[in-house]
Amino acid sequence: MASKLVVKLAEKLKPLPDPETMTFGQTQTDHMLIVNYDPEHGWGTPEIKPYAPLVLDPMSSCFQYCPNVFEGMKAYLGPDGEPRLFRPQKNMERLARSAERVALPVNALLVLIKRLGYSLYLRPTMIGTRPALGVAASDAACLYVVVTPTGPYFKGKAHGISLLAVSESVRAWPGGTGGHKLGLNYAPGFAPQREAAKKGYEQILWLFGDRITEVGAMNVFAIVKRDDGALDAFTPPLDGTILPGVTRSSVLALLDAHTKGKSLIPGVPATQKIYTHEIPITMSEIKVWSDEGKLLEIFGVGTAVAVAPGWDEEVVLPHHDGGLGPVGKGLFDHLMDIQSGRVEFEGWSVSVV
Amino acid sequence: MASKLVVKLAEKLKPLPDPETMTFGQTQTDHMLIVNYDPEHGWGTPEIKPYAPLVLDPMSSCFQYCPNVFEGMKAYLGPDGEPRLFRPQKNMERLARSAERVALPVNALLVLIKRLGYSLYLRPTMIGTRPALGVAASDAACLYVVVTPTGPYFKGKAHGISLLAVSESVRAWPGGTGGHKLGLNYAPGFAPQREAAKKGYEQILWLFGDRITEVGAMNVFAIVKRDDGALDAFTPPLDGTILPGVTRSSVLALLDAHTKGKSLIPGVPATQKIYTHEIPITMSEIKVWSDEGKLLEIFGVGTAVAVAPGWDEEVVLPHHDGGLGPVGKGLFDHLMDIQSGRVEFEGWSVSVV
Repeated sequence: MASKLVVKLAEKLKPLPDPETMTFGQTQTDHMLIVNYDPEHGWGTPEIKPYAPLVLDPMSSCFQYCPNVFEGMKAYLGPDGEPRLFRPQKNMERLARSAERVALPVNALLVLIKRLGYSLYLRPTMIGTRPALGVAASDAACLYVVVTPTGPYFKGKAHGISLLAVSESVRAWPGGTGGHKLGLNYAPGFAPQREAAKKGYEQILWLFGDRITEVGAMNVFAIVKRDDGALDAFTPPLDGTILPGVTRSSVLALLDAHTKGKSLIPGVPATQKIYTHEIPITMSEIKVWSDEGKLLEIFGVGTAVAVAPGWDEEVVLPHHDGGLGPVGKGLFDHLMDIQSGRVEFEGWSVSVV
Repeated sequence: MASKLVVKLAEKLKPLPDPETMTFGQTQTDHMLIVNYDPEHGWGTPEIKPYAPLVLDPMSSCFQYCPNVFEGMKAYLGPDGEPRLFRPQKNMERLARSAERVALPVNALLVLIKRLGYSLYLRPTMIGTRPALGVAASDAACLYVVVTPTGPYFKGKAHGISLLAVSESVRAWPGGTGGHKLGLNYAPGFAPQREAAKKGYEQILWLFGDRITEVGAMNVFAIVKRDDGALDAFTPPLDGTILPGVTRSSVLALLDAHTKGKSLIPGVPATQKIYTHEIPITMSEIKVWSDEGKLLEIFGVGTAVAVAPGWDEEVVLPHHDGGLGPVGKGLFDHLMDIQSGRVEFEGWSVSVV
């Protein structure tokens, strides 16, 4: 079953459209995977069928109370022409954790994922479909996967992304859901994002008090020079307000691997030590580092964009050609190499044929 | 148009099913109202059509990022057999504010509401339907109204509702969306509610630090005896973490009206002064009031339940027959009288035929 699904979906990925001519998430392949759960029968049989609208009771939980979970995964075509998924198990584990957080049927989900052989595709989405208005956990669900080719997320960016630091709107808080990949974490950012765009900024730098938490829909990294010539890489800790990004986890691992000499980041000297720190980053620290000329780079990381440069009106960052600085650029290239299968790293890239 | 819609929907409300035999939100009338917005044409023509599933692109924003808004409104049958809506304009204003908060097309919504004559029914729901995965405001929307008869929300409750005070999970946060009626505020409560149920509690008393914020999906009131024989009615202020409930606003107005002698609460002596205070209530205060024998009542208020008694293991409340104390019971009866058209109060009850 699993391999059949995988091959069928893989077929749909070839030939991939020209990334330059399409916009992220607005085109999709002509098939989708779908499977339903109901309280009586549990999970049905996963089906690959022609891309089609969902037909749902208007009282369904997904519309009313939003127990909706999704994942973002990318498939990469390697030099051998075969599609590969990047660390898909990480996404599937997070999907299960997120579903648990909004009380969707999870035990059954784990069984299903096992049956699918960890081969769900690009946008697995799980929605609550209990057709009743009482405020209660959804005891019915629909899990579906749509496939959309990805072009560049930020088109024509040779410079950094302009960021507006926002603290009046708060993306996530202790005891909230910011550490889970839930649809409901995103809608509250739309109005602030629109305000930022009106003021001429491309993305929001989300603050929690003085702390930097995320940038747009990405995890954030700051690269700071040390007096001994080494670099520090800071990213906020997974304290429940930060999305446990797959790219975030990968970047931490790749920085450590470089420093230990296990797998070198292209363009970064083998002797360059970069020490990772999962600790809070404050705006005050950023300004001090900036004033002292120690702030080398700020960038955001996420599946949709891989690595994107950050830039702020008030914080002066060294200008880098192409937007990304040496560490960000090296990580971007390194990730691309691994994801396309040109470079092997700890089995992260999973061939799907 | 408006009156035609209203009459057609009103027909569907009669005869109402027996409230004792049905569960809230699991039955619905056989018609619904629906109207779609798209970025090219704006709002279409509202239609009343047979109750039917929604047919939506799997990439629609409503599934992915949850820009979904709803209202809860009740229609009441008066002694004259005619259905009435309770303060529907309050709900429509809040629907527009909530839609604005998640960047749904709002200006057009206000025009639409005017066209409908403020006569939308029980569960107006507005969902984002932009069929694309890019994280951005939904420039397409679907607004629909389903009608479901309401039975008692808490069945067979002659005693108070047992509450588990929860502070690890936080319902809302300053800078978040707790002050808006958004679907996404509800799903994060499902898992904690399930945990509370496992421990034998019926509802959650949501804390923010030491502060009481809401109870279940209701606003909360505490009634406290003063030394001079008057009563204080406390409810948390609308600081952005508290839902601006229509019933909350009504209870505040009815308490004031009683104290000013404008409209007496049944069962509460005309000479009994009750002073309202929209200020934070802490657990420490509740315990002090309880220890001093000053805590008369705690109750939750909301459209689905009107007024429901609260009860907590650790806080000793005077036992009241039927669960509600004199103020809660009086408010419940008073609201029922106004909502059914037996008592007139400031034009709150709006006949829909």
